[in-house]
Amino acid sequence: MTSQTSFSGQDTAFVEDFRTMSTFGATANGGVDRQAASTADGEQRRWLTGLLQEHGFTVKFDRAGNQWGLHEAVPGAPYVVVGSHMDSQPTAGRYDGAYGVLAAAHAAFRLKAGWSDAGAVAPKYNIAVVNWFNEEGSRFKPSMMGSSVYTGKLELDTALSTTDAAGISVREALDAIGCRGDFAGPEAACCAEIHIEQGRSMERDGVTIGLVSSNWAANKYEFVVHGEQAHTGSTVIEDRKDALLGASMLVVAARELANRFPGVLHTSVGQLNVYPNSPVVVPSRVNLLLDLRSADESVLAEADTLLHRRIAEIESLANVSVEQHHAHSWPVTPYPREGVELAAKVAADLGLSNKSVMTVAGHDSTNMKDLVPTVMLFVPSVEGISHNEHEYTTDEDIVAGLAMLTEVANSLCQGALEPAGTR
Amino acid sequence: MTSQTSFSGQDTAFVEDFRTMSTFGATANGGVDRQAASTADGEQRRWLTGLLQEHGFTVKFDRAGNQWGLHEAVPGAPYVVVGSHMDSQPTAGRYDGAYGVLAAAHAAFRLKAGWSDAGAVAPKYNIAVVNWFNEEGSRFKPSMMGSSVYTGKLELDTALSTTDAAGISVREALDAIGCRGDFAGPEAACCAEIHIEQGRSMERDGVTIGLVSSNWAANKYEFVVHGEQAHTGSTVIEDRKDALLGASMLVVAARELANRFPGVLHTSVGQLNVYPNSPVVVPSRVNLLLDLRSADESVLAEADTLLHRRIAEIESLANVSVEQHHAHSWPVTPYPREGVELAAKVAADLGLSNKSVMTVAGHDSTNMKDLVPTVMLFVPSVEGISHNEHEYTTDEDIVAGLAMLTEVANSLCQGALEPAGTR
Repeated sequence: MTSQTSFSGQDTAFVEDFRTMSTFGATANGGVDRQAASTADGEQRRWLTGLLQEHGFTVKFDRAGNQWGLHEAVPGAPYVVVGSHMDSQPTAGRYDGAYGVLAAAHAAFRLKAGWSDAGAVAPKYNIAVVNWFNEEGSRFKPSMMGSSVYTGKLELDTALSTTDAAGISVREALDAIGCRGDFAGPEAACCAEIHIEQGRSMERDGVTIGLVSSNWAANKYEFVVHGEQAHTGSTVIEDRKDALLGASMLVVAARELANRFPGVLHTSVGQLNVYPNSPVVVPSRVNLLLDLRSADESVLAEADTLLHRRIAEIESLANVSVEQHHAHSWPVTPYPREGVELAAKVAADLGLSNKSVMTVAGHDSTNMKDLVPTVMLFVPSVEGISHNEHEYTTDEDIVAGLAMLTEVANSLCQGALEPAGTR
Repeated sequence: MTSQTSFSGQDTAFVEDFRTMSTFGATANGGVDRQAASTADGEQRRWLTGLLQEHGFTVKFDRAGNQWGLHEAVPGAPYVVVGSHMDSQPTAGRYDGAYGVLAAAHAAFRLKAGWSDAGAVAPKYNIAVVNWFNEEGSRFKPSMMGSSVYTGKLELDTALSTTDAAGISVREALDAIGCRGDFAGPEAACCAEIHIEQGRSMERDGVTIGLVSSNWAANKYEFVVHGEQAHTGSTVIEDRKDALLGASMLVVAARELANRFPGVLHTSVGQLNVYPNSPVVVPSRVNLLLDLRSADESVLAEADTLLHRRIAEIESLANVSVEQHHAHSWPVTPYPREGVELAAKVAADLGLSNKSVMTVAGHDSTNMKDLVPTVMLFVPSVEGISHNEHEYTTDEDIVAGLAMLTEVANSLCQGALEPAGTR
C-alpha cells in the first residue's frame, strides 16, 4: 500500500498529514473508530485546529458542533465552503469523510498561499474549510446532523437534545470534547466536497475523478415489531407472538425486494434491537431500521408498496403487529449542471480521467446543494469497500483528488458559479 | 384476581407472604424484574432471610450464592432439600420460581411445627429450604447456575468468573448484594420442587397437581454469523455479506422446523445481537442463541440434521459463514418413578386432581434428580402464560400446591424415598 510515485513536496505533506490523521481512533485492523463526539473525534478535531491555525486560518466551532477554518481574503465577502466530515462508523475505514476534510484544508492552504503571491488576482469569495459534525449518524440519529442544522433542515435544539444509546445528549457530548461554540457559521456562496466513491463503478471504468450529477432517492423506515413475551421452551408454537420472527421475516423481505429489481434497488437493515433479548424468552419487541434506495423514483414507489403488502402478510404469518414508527425519504435531486460542467472542464485541464456518477450514499453536500451552488467529487474506492476497516484509495488517487478539489475551489472563489440569488 | 375461597390462617399467611414477596422488583404491569444478583434480587433475599429466621431456621449462603434455610431436627442427618429460585427474567411474572421457594419455606415451617408437637414422630431427615442462584440465566449464562454448581455439573470458579453484558462477574455481583458465603451446602437426602406449569395442558385438563415424570430433551446452540461490514447504500447487493440477513434466515428456519413437526418440536431464538448495529452499515457479525426441544429424541436428532442442512444453504444464499460457537444438550430423562408414585398417592390422599406431565422448561430439580431422589410438582398456569408480566396462577391453586408440597416433603423426611446408595 506504499506508493511508487514521487510526489511534490506539497503532495507529500498532504499524504503525511493523512497518515497522521488516521492515527486518531486507529483500530488494530488498519481502520478507525471515531464516532461523533467521541474522545477520538475530539482529539482529531483539536489536531485539525492546530493544522488550520499553523496555516493562518481562524478556527471556530458553531452551535451544532461544526468545525470551521476561515480565511478572509476579501473582507465581508461570503465564503466558498469546502469540506466533509471526520467522524466515522464504528470499526470504519480511514477515507470516508476524513479524506474530504483534509483535502479541503490542503486545497485552502494552496489557495491562500497563491493569493498572497505578488501579482495574484484577489478572489471574489473567501474560503472556509468545514468539518461537519456527525455525518455518520451511528451514535446520534439522524446522519448529516451538522450540515442539516447549518442548512436549516433540522432545528438546532432538536439536534442538541438527541441522545445516544447511553442517554448522553449531543449537547453533553459536544461539551465534553469542547466542540460546541456560539458561532452561527459563515455565509456560504458556494460549496465543494470530495469523497471516496464507496462503490466499484469508477474502479471498473478506470477513471480517477467522479463528477457527481445527482443522488439516489431513499426511503428510510423505523419499524417496531410487537409480539408478546413467553417461555421459549414451554409455550406451544401456536400461542407464540414472536417479535423476532416477524422482524427476521422483514429482513429477508427487504433482500427479496432488492432481488426483484436487480441493480436498481438497494435495500438493507443495518440496525436491529431485540427486547428482552434473553435466551429463554420469546421476544416481545424488535426495533429495526430498514432502507430502500434507488436512482429510479418509480422503482422506489413500487418497492414501498410491495414492502407494505409483505408487512401485512408477515403480521399474519408471525402473529405480530408491525408499527411504522418513523420514516423519512428524499427524492433524486440533481447537483447543479453548471457545477458538473465546471468540474469536467477542470478535470480535462488537469488531464484527469473522469465520468459523471450518481451517489447512493448521502453526503453533507446533499444538504448544501439545496442552499448554494455545490460541486461534489469522487475518487475511486478499491473494490468498492467502505464502512469497513479495509476501505482503501491509492495515494495517487487521493493526491489527484486534492489537485482537482483545489482547482474547483479556486474557480468557485473566482466566482465561476454564482449563487442562485445573484445570477 | 382476588380469591373467593376462605383459607385457613396458615394459608392466608402464605398468600399474604406471596403478595409481599411480589413487591420486590415489581413492575408497573403487575410483573417483576429481578434478574440474578440485581438489587431487587438482593432485597428479596434479605426479606427471605428474615422470614426463615423468624421461624427458627438457620440461614446460610453457599459459595455459589445459593440461599439455604436449615432446620436440624435430627442432628447429623442429611437434608430433604425443598425449593426453587427467586430470580426472574426481565419483565417477568410473579410466580416462576418464587412461588416454589415460598411454598418450600411454608411447607418447612409446617413440618417443623408438626415435629415439635407433643408425641410427634421424629423425622429421619432434616429439612432445608433452598433459593437457588440464577436459575433464569438471562443476566449470567448458563441458566440453573446455582444448582449446577451444587450438583457438581459446573465448576464453582467457572460460575463465579462468568460475566454479564456489562462485564460484571458473578463473584462481584454476589458480593455487591452480600450473598456469596463460604458454606458448602448441606448434604442432600432427597429433593422436592414445586413450580408453575408454564403451559396450558393442566388448565385444559382441569387438574390441580402435575406429577412431573420427565423433561423434554433440548439442543441449545450459540451461532455466530460472519459477514463483512459495507455501506448499506452504495454497496451493490451481489458484493454484500450481510450477517443479519443470514441470521434472519436462521430465525425463520427455526420456526419452519417447528412447523414441520407440529406439537412435538419447540424451537426459538430468544437472544440476537448485531454488530456494529449502525443504521448505514451492513452487519458483519450476529450472535444468536437457538434452541430445539422435543419430548422425542429421534425428532430432536432429525431436527438437528435438518437445521444444519439448512445452515449450509443459508451460508450460500446470504454469502455468510455460520460458526457453531457453543452447543449443549440434554436428553429426555425421567424423574424417579417411585417419586411420581409417592406424589400420586399424596395427591389422592389430599383429594387433589392430578396427572402425569413432562416439563419442557428446565428446572433446578432437573439437576437435583441426577444426585438424589427428586419429586417435581406443577400447579396450573392460567392460559399457559409465562416469562410475561401477566403470568398468573389462582390463589386456590397455589394454596393446594403448598398442601401437596408439604405432604410430599413430610413423606420424604420420613424416608419414603431412599437415596440410591442406601437402597
